Amino acid sequence: MQKYQIRMSDTSTSGLLKFLPLRSFIHNDFWHKYAEIKIDIDRLDESGRSIVGTIALKKEKSTMIEVACSSFNTHYTDGSVPGFRCKGTLLNYNTMESFKQCDKKELLRTQAIRFYHDLMKLETITNSADLIHFFLLSFADLKCYKFYHWFAFPAPTELIYQYDDDQTLSAPDAAERMRLCIVQFLYQKRTPNEPFFIYHVNDGLKLLSECINHHNIEANFRTENIAEFYFCFYDPSGHSAEMPLSWHVRHPALAAQRIKCLRITGATSNELQYSGMTIYLPSNGTDVNNLVNWAGWEVDEKGKYLPRVSSLAQSMSPESLAESAINLNLKLMKWRLIPSLNLDTINKTKCLLLGAGTLGCNVARSLMAWGVTHMTIVDCGRVSLSNPVRQSLYRYEDALQGGKPKATTASERLREINPAAKITGVSMKIPMPGHPVSQGDGVAEIRDILRKLTGLIQEHDVIYLLTDSRESRWLPTMLGAFYGKLVINAALGFDSYLVMRHGYKTSGNSGGVKMETETIATYPAGFRRISGSDLGCYFCNDIVAPGNSMKDRTLDQQCTVTRPAVSNMASALAVELMVSLIQHGNAPAYYRIPKSDPLCQEQEPDGLLGIIPHSIRGNIGTLQTMITATERYANCVACSASILNRYACDKDEFIINIINGTESLETVAGLNKIMSSMFDEQDVKVSLDFESDCSDDS
Amino acid sequence: MQKYQIRMSDTSTSGLLKFLPLRSFIHNDFWHKYAEIKIDIDRLDESGRSIVGTIALKKEKSTMIEVACSSFNTHYTDGSVPGFRCKGTLLNYNTMESFKQCDKKELLRTQAIRFYHDLMKLETITNSADLIHFFLLSFADLKCYKFYHWFAFPAPTELIYQYDDDQTLSAPDAAERMRLCIVQFLYQKRTPNEPFFIYHVNDGLKLLSECINHHNIEANFRTENIAEFYFCFYDPSGHSAEMPLSWHVRHPALAAQRIKCLRITGATSNELQYSGMTIYLPSNGTDVNNLVNWAGWEVDEKGKYLPRVSSLAQSMSPESLAESAINLNLKLMKWRLIPSLNLDTINKTKCLLLGAGTLGCNVARSLMAWGVTHMTIVDCGRVSLSNPVRQSLYRYEDALQGGKPKATTASERLREINPAAKITGVSMKIPMPGHPVSQGDGVAEIRDILRKLTGLIQEHDVIYLLTDSRESRWLPTMLGAFYGKLVINAALGFDSYLVMRHGYKTSGNSGGVKMETETIATYPAGFRRISGSDLGCYFCNDIVAPGNSMKDRTLDQQCTVTRPAVSNMASALAVELMVSLIQHGNAPAYYRIPKSDPLCQEQEPDGLLGIIPHSIRGNIGTLQTMITATERYANCVACSASILNRYACDKDEFIINIINGTESLETVAGLNKIMSSMFDEQDVKVSLDFESDCSDDS
Repeated sequence: MQKYQIRMSDTSTSGLLKFLPLRSFIHNDFWHKYAEIKIDIDRLDESGRSIVGTIALKKEKSTMIEVACSSFNTHYTDGSVPGFRCKGTLLNYNTMESFKQCDKKELLRTQAIRFYHDLMKLETITNSADLIHFFLLSFADLKCYKFYHWFAFPAPTELIYQYDDDQTLSAPDAAERMRLCIVQFLYQKRTPNEPFFIYHVNDGLKLLSECINHHNIEANFRTENIAEFYFCFYDPSGHSAEMPLSWHVRHPALAAQRIKCLRITGATSNELQYSGMTIYLPSNGTDVNNLVNWAGWEVDEKGKYLPRVSSLAQSMSPESLAESAINLNLKLMKWRLIPSLNLDTINKTKCLLLGAGTLGCNVARSLMAWGVTHMTIVDCGRVSLSNPVRQSLYRYEDALQGGKPKATTASERLREINPAAKITGVSMKIPMPGHPVSQGDGVAEIRDILRKLTGLIQEHDVIYLLTDSRESRWLPTMLGAFYGKLVINAALGFDSYLVMRHGYKTSGNSGGVKMETETIATYPAGFRRISGSDLGCYFCNDIVAPGNSMKDRTLDQQCTVTRPAVSNMASALAVELMVSLIQHGNAPAYYRIPKSDPLCQEQEPDGLLGIIPHSIRGNIGTLQTMITATERYANCVACSASILNRYACDKDEFIINIINGTESLETVAGLNKIMSSMFDEQDVKVSLDFESDCSDDS
Repeated sequence: MQKYQIRMSDTSTSGLLKFLPLRSFIHNDFWHKYAEIKIDIDRLDESGRSIVGTIALKKEKSTMIEVACSSFNTHYTDGSVPGFRCKGTLLNYNTMESFKQCDKKELLRTQAIRFYHDLMKLETITNSADLIHFFLLSFADLKCYKFYHWFAFPAPTELIYQYDDDQTLSAPDAAERMRLCIVQFLYQKRTPNEPFFIYHVNDGLKLLSECINHHNIEANFRTENIAEFYFCFYDPSGHSAEMPLSWHVRHPALAAQRIKCLRITGATSNELQYSGMTIYLPSNGTDVNNLVNWAGWEVDEKGKYLPRVSSLAQSMSPESLAESAINLNLKLMKWRLIPSLNLDTINKTKCLLLGAGTLGCNVARSLMAWGVTHMTIVDCGRVSLSNPVRQSLYRYEDALQGGKPKATTASERLREINPAAKITGVSMKIPMPGHPVSQGDGVAEIRDILRKLTGLIQEHDVIYLLTDSRESRWLPTMLGAFYGKLVINAALGFDSYLVMRHGYKTSGNSGGVKMETETIATYPAGFRRISGSDLGCYFCNDIVAPGNSMKDRTLDQQCTVTRPAVSNMASALAVELMVSLIQHGNAPAYYRIPKSDPLCQEQEPDGLLGIIPHSIRGNIGTLQTMITATERYANCVACSASILNRYACDKDEFIINIINGTESLETVAGLNKIMSSMFDEQDVKVSLDFESDCSDDS
């Protein structure tokens, strides 16, 4: 078979062995994978991560160790990636400073000695990949997707190896058998993952791991009895002993002190060449601990001993870079501050924003900053000229020619911030009690809106009430309670704000993400606790149903005259309240019992991100914040059982009646009775007071 | 002189007098002016505003009363506007609802009766403009620049006037004299402002006001002795008695009950026609209080008795509409909430923002919302892909291809919000201690930056420190103190923020707006007070000079890992602090004396917009806010006298030495001595403690 051109060394030679330095090749996906691991798993851990390098059956000037995303797999024998494996360690530093400043010489020595100690305990070696060790020093600048790195393949420079040519396998009778054996083993089957394999005169080529048990290879290594074994490896740099040997053979050579080798070259079976040699250390009994001089840092493109940098930003799509960058800011919170923060829950929360004014714009921005990407924004207005300076998603041009619709403009602007976000704008007016509609067209339109609105509420997990009137909050409050959705409400005064969550029960009508319910039962004395499902809504404190509040407003009352900070703070806190809450499910709220010891220093129970209040009332004039919690009111016009039951029965008809004023919320909620009895009581009380006053006088 | 074509009534007639309704014309500038007055002066006042209408010497079908911006002038005799004046009242309602709902019939009657009562007291009339009265009902929707309005010229419909032709002045001998007299009076001189004038057989034409004193006109009006006077007026609708008389003559007619008139028509002297008539009420002794039926509402374009709407938005430039709209939101604060708020001071404050990250973007937006239009933004960075979701002025596209420079991009985006704003972006790196520069080019660059930065600080009134490191705040803190500028500082933690103002002295180096110093000296017990100029700066609490803090930061420390709400709240409060402070000049700050009675309910002294703290430390995890005030530290590394004196002497050299570390801030500030003595004391204290511990044991 003429095509196998096996050339053999003509003369038997011996001499000092030279080694050709290893080279490295880092596939981009190696750094991509590492970026993920660093951000999500390793975080601040600097202790080093085991990686696997691969030497491919390729034609190269010298042996090249490649690392790729699969290098982080813990098993060498991952058959999906062809090539011989070798063992490595990624030593990543957390700061550029420590990457630069670390003592490179000392690092090389300690890494090498640790490895050689492992090597001497041959019983720990199950795969010949364990016989080669490299390490990779790095600093990952994840903000810029730049990876500073330096490969090292440590080897002691003080040891001088000698070699003798071994012509045994080149003898004509052995040569053909040998050649067929190699072709079968290396080229016809899948390349073995092990870098070293054994040729035994009786058994032919085998993986080192197969031989360990069969032939007591350790004993053979340790003794001079090596006649039967050839330690075989692929060396792209050449096959004859005059050509420097691949660096990676130094490792097992040191372990064995005297070893018979079969050095194979040729990326294909056509190019196959091999030669046998015996390598040995002339001096005996080397103690690696006494070795001082180690080499092995890789040189850069210019042949200098310097680290290199891989910059991935150019090769990544801007979209995926943006996604990584946005997530990085959030994931870094988990490195040190809140390791158990569940970013996934936040990211997957679908938010419905009712209102795209100052509050709506700011809430949408804050949600985006927290990594929420699924939002629907509802508003019926158009951008007016006074809006852009206060409503942070609009520009002057949006307000020209009568103004663009707010809902769609806001969603467009949000996509300009994060093109990957799923934002929908819906131009729709929320039906309101006290704003009657005409029969016919008017009612038909309301039915259409109700169909859309109930659909939206069911499709989303969290509903934000960010409109500018009390009555526009009624319907979504009621529907939120009915469908068991978390409702976050924000309302503004001139220099004060209210941010609150509505209590909700997930049972029954909920279609969204079912949130776990907090079960922590103990909490400090001095506090009262209200479970998440028993908390009140925006209307629970009111004994008057919402009506048309815009009707008699003067201009300064209409225009939401408010200090700019108020909306900024309210919307920021509204989003934090949601983010904090969904880390814990439908968490309870607490309030300090008014008559408890004022000197009691016990703190309100808190969650992962701090306390999770029911409502926050802030004032920027006094810079005071009031945290309150109130229970659901049994006769609430929006969330009481009687209202929800009535809606369950009559659906749209009920709402249309309420809007048109043909039915009264006070009556349905049973507020009428309560109020009349209240006034009765008050009358009694007043007359009693009056009587007692009289008696005082007399 | 053939050109004066005076036609006279051929036959003497008499009969019932008909009146042609008045019409109105509102120039757009009337509403523009009123919008200003309403916003800035009238605000919520609904009591009515006197206005002046004008009847022009024009060819019209019927008499037209025009109102324009000059209608708000209080004097009739404003010669700059040609035309006959008449008296009016603008009755503006604060809500659309009250405009719609008011009883129009009753309003007409009460307005008319009030007017006629004035009319009967002829002594109050100094100008014949007082003899005509109209009123204008309106609702000004200043958000949309829409003005709903309805003119009325009240007149009693129950009274039936009769007339007799008066041919006296048409007699050939009188006619030519009369004609010349009118031509001179009306057409050759400037048209008189009075709508009625008097023709006296001896004196010729005179203004009514001139006659009042000369001829005891009142007595003549009241008696039948009217032979000598002709009551003259311009009536575009015609001159002969068969043609309906202009409505406006009904008013003086009612007052006089019997009156000789000269009715003149013709917009130019060529068209001049006139005729005399006597108007009288057949019934005697009318009491206006008994009159029930009044007419006078103007009809709309379609002839219906309905209000009309003037929409100015179309005719205004979008720029000026935007300016009005932005200011409206602010000016409405003065209507009810804070009438003495000085918006002008806010508007004129020039702000220098150092840093255009999350804080910079939000501060700029909040300033814009408060009406600040002059800003300069300094940043040396470029927009990165993680920025847009948190830094509210940038978009995804700004981060592509390596990112646009932040400073110029931010200013561009701000102009897209308000094109009238004067925003400048300066890409510049603030020199920092611990970040040395190379000799030569490096130092030359620093000198250039220092020249620019000191220029910017001198040109602005308020300096915001919004950068992301401690050391970048040193130089502007020092320069702010040196030039006596208000410095507002905001810094972020993961869930906490610090917002503070630096104390400053306006004396000496200040080049900007000199702010008044608060002089209120009394304040509640339980508080300590620190004057504005004695307050500390960001570095006053530190005993270590700033150095390179970025050097050893891990990624999560570098990236300002912070909950989104933190920056939103800090920047909002930073702007409110400035706005609140500049209402009062360099106001003092207060802090509660720690050992004061905890049950003392006294509140911290506040200003127009609430308390004006020195520093605000907020935490969004606990939702607590701490208000603190601290005094300037005599050995502060940034604002102490020794540092400022040193800068005064050595200027740039001092700063370059500090940056390069060849000189130590601790030494210049005298901190070194303090610290060594502190440690000495501590050593002593520790040993003393140890001793006392021992004695306890024994």
